[in-house]
Amino acid sequence: MGFFAHGGDLDGYFRRFPGRVPLDFSASLNPLGMPGPVRAALHEAVEECGRYPDPFCRALSEGLAARWGLAPEQVFCGNGAAEIFDRLAMALKLKNALLTAPGFSEYERALRASGCGCRFHTLREETGFAVTERILSALTGEIDAVFLCSPNNPTGQAIAPELLNRIAERCAETGVWLVVDECFGGFLADDRARSMRRWLGRCDRLVVVRAFTKLYALAGVRLGWCMTQNPEVIQALRAAGQPWNVSYLAQKAGVAALNCDKFVQESVRLIQRERAGMADGLRRCGMRVCPGQANFVLFRSPDTALAEKLLPRGILLRDCANFRGLEAGWYRAAVRKREQNQRLLESIQEVLHGKNNHGAGHVL
Amino acid sequence: MGFFAHGGDLDGYFRRFPGRVPLDFSASLNPLGMPGPVRAALHEAVEECGRYPDPFCRALSEGLAARWGLAPEQVFCGNGAAEIFDRLAMALKLKNALLTAPGFSEYERALRASGCGCRFHTLREETGFAVTERILSALTGEIDAVFLCSPNNPTGQAIAPELLNRIAERCAETGVWLVVDECFGGFLADDRARSMRRWLGRCDRLVVVRAFTKLYALAGVRLGWCMTQNPEVIQALRAAGQPWNVSYLAQKAGVAALNCDKFVQESVRLIQRERAGMADGLRRCGMRVCPGQANFVLFRSPDTALAEKLLPRGILLRDCANFRGLEAGWYRAAVRKREQNQRLLESIQEVLHGKNNHGAGHVL
Repeated sequence: MGFFAHGGDLDGYFRRFPGRVPLDFSASLNPLGMPGPVRAALHEAVEECGRYPDPFCRALSEGLAARWGLAPEQVFCGNGAAEIFDRLAMALKLKNALLTAPGFSEYERALRASGCGCRFHTLREETGFAVTERILSALTGEIDAVFLCSPNNPTGQAIAPELLNRIAERCAETGVWLVVDECFGGFLADDRARSMRRWLGRCDRLVVVRAFTKLYALAGVRLGWCMTQNPEVIQALRAAGQPWNVSYLAQKAGVAALNCDKFVQESVRLIQRERAGMADGLRRCGMRVCPGQANFVLFRSPDTALAEKLLPRGILLRDCANFRGLEAGWYRAAVRKREQNQRLLESIQEVLHGKNNHGAGHVL
Repeated sequence: MGFFAHGGDLDGYFRRFPGRVPLDFSASLNPLGMPGPVRAALHEAVEECGRYPDPFCRALSEGLAARWGLAPEQVFCGNGAAEIFDRLAMALKLKNALLTAPGFSEYERALRASGCGCRFHTLREETGFAVTERILSALTGEIDAVFLCSPNNPTGQAIAPELLNRIAERCAETGVWLVVDECFGGFLADDRARSMRRWLGRCDRLVVVRAFTKLYALAGVRLGWCMTQNPEVIQALRAAGQPWNVSYLAQKAGVAALNCDKFVQESVRLIQRERAGMADGLRRCGMRVCPGQANFVLFRSPDTALAEKLLPRGILLRDCANFRGLEAGWYRAAVRKREQNQRLLESIQEVLHGKNNHGAGHVL
């Protein structure tokens, strides 16, 4: 079926290694899995999902709005955050967008599909691929939108709040649309303080995109959303696609997830704790580790076939060589539970020290 | 949240009539509900849906391809058939499309969202809103695509196979894209013989769209698909949107549905039998009934407030006044089980004969 540009292609793995269940570090999902109440809501929803979903996602939008101090009309839900980017590209009728390199490649695909040109602001390795003040000078009238991801995929770097303020100010001045992807924001201890939600009242051309996918491990259910105080954007997002984009199951799962605060706190603690240990371990393996705050770690391996060599050991890494601005040797690994991260580190050690002849039987 | 142009808005009903569960004739779904094996597959899938869905829908595409005598690469799956129309509108880069009036309004919305102009071939009431040879003269070089629905929503009229052959021939001659929506085809006794699948090998610009939504009562799950022998179309459909458009749940439900042949046969028998009885009953109520073959009936009522009057009685009809080419008084009712259809007919009788003062308590 062709090459797949992203991580998390378990079905591709199953076809290549029949009968084996890998440890997937290539998709950056909550290692705790789906919260119990969400799972229960999904089972309940299965019994009712012969009916059409609510085309306005009323209950979910109300829940999100209450949580984020907005009106339900300022929320739009999608079939994963990825669909929100598709709709935004159509709805905003963009001509020239600025993206970071590296960055999530779906922005570019969505924008180009709608006829929008893309230019790239290259993040530099010497500053850990962080977005810096340097970006301000790129926010000119020559572009009509900038897509930022914080924490950024695949670097894990969250943009400093003070810099985001200046970016938003500059966008407001120049009339540039600012789309901030906060899909990994839920894993930050200070998510709420960092969120660009705070700018919605001040910037008419700001859209903040978030997802349930990663934090609640709902990748297979598909649920993302965005918030904006611009009613024309919401209207255009609706007109950009079918009215039944969010399944009945996803809506029910989302409503249940909004009541899982303790689960979120536990997840944040786990990620923050394990991220540090994993970064240390990767450094001890001889990797160059990108500093970051997300639930995944970007690192550079001296062995540019690392991911391929880990496959028969039942380990999936995200090979980042196809990210603009990254070269062969860069990999992204999700932060998982301690024993799983340990297994990743051990497998990497084995691969790097040539124990791969007998490794497969040992590891699985 | 504003006006909704389609049927099946149960959440809108719940908000207006709290605590009441209506009989929904406004969405044309299989009255038998979801087949047991599909429900079981969904429950099983809930346990696994923390992972990303297969971006290539491999297992489902293979199952569909085997069933329809195609290669898996000739199948593309979507988040409901509605998403397929959105993607087609983008992928085919159309400038001028021909649609029927009346017809499913989502074609027009999808086409206009992608910048395509729409012109309308008006179906005439005196021929029961059937598509006739008259359409052939509209298939000229002035249009680049024609979207047909067979059986047509909302008329229920299936296009005669002989006429479809001539339409396909004309489209092949003139280079016009032919999109045939067969979402309601599964309810026809001779579905397979009628399907435009038979033309795929002969027409490079043919796309046949089908859905699981209606036949398997999977409206809340979202699953549609299309087939074409043009690999560029499949490629363009993929590029037109995110790679994770079909949820893990929907893929598993679809695979399970492909093994429910007895359920389909039973459904077809029920619909064909009950459709005739319902049409008779509606005529006896004084309605003008459009001839058709689908799992719904289009009829004209002398009372143009019929749907509104049925609401407090716990009955939802699809008011078709917002369909191009139809006027106030036209309604669409799903064919349901006999006792349910009977309740619809009784409620209509009560409304028409002014018994609505005490009807509500009586009916529910």
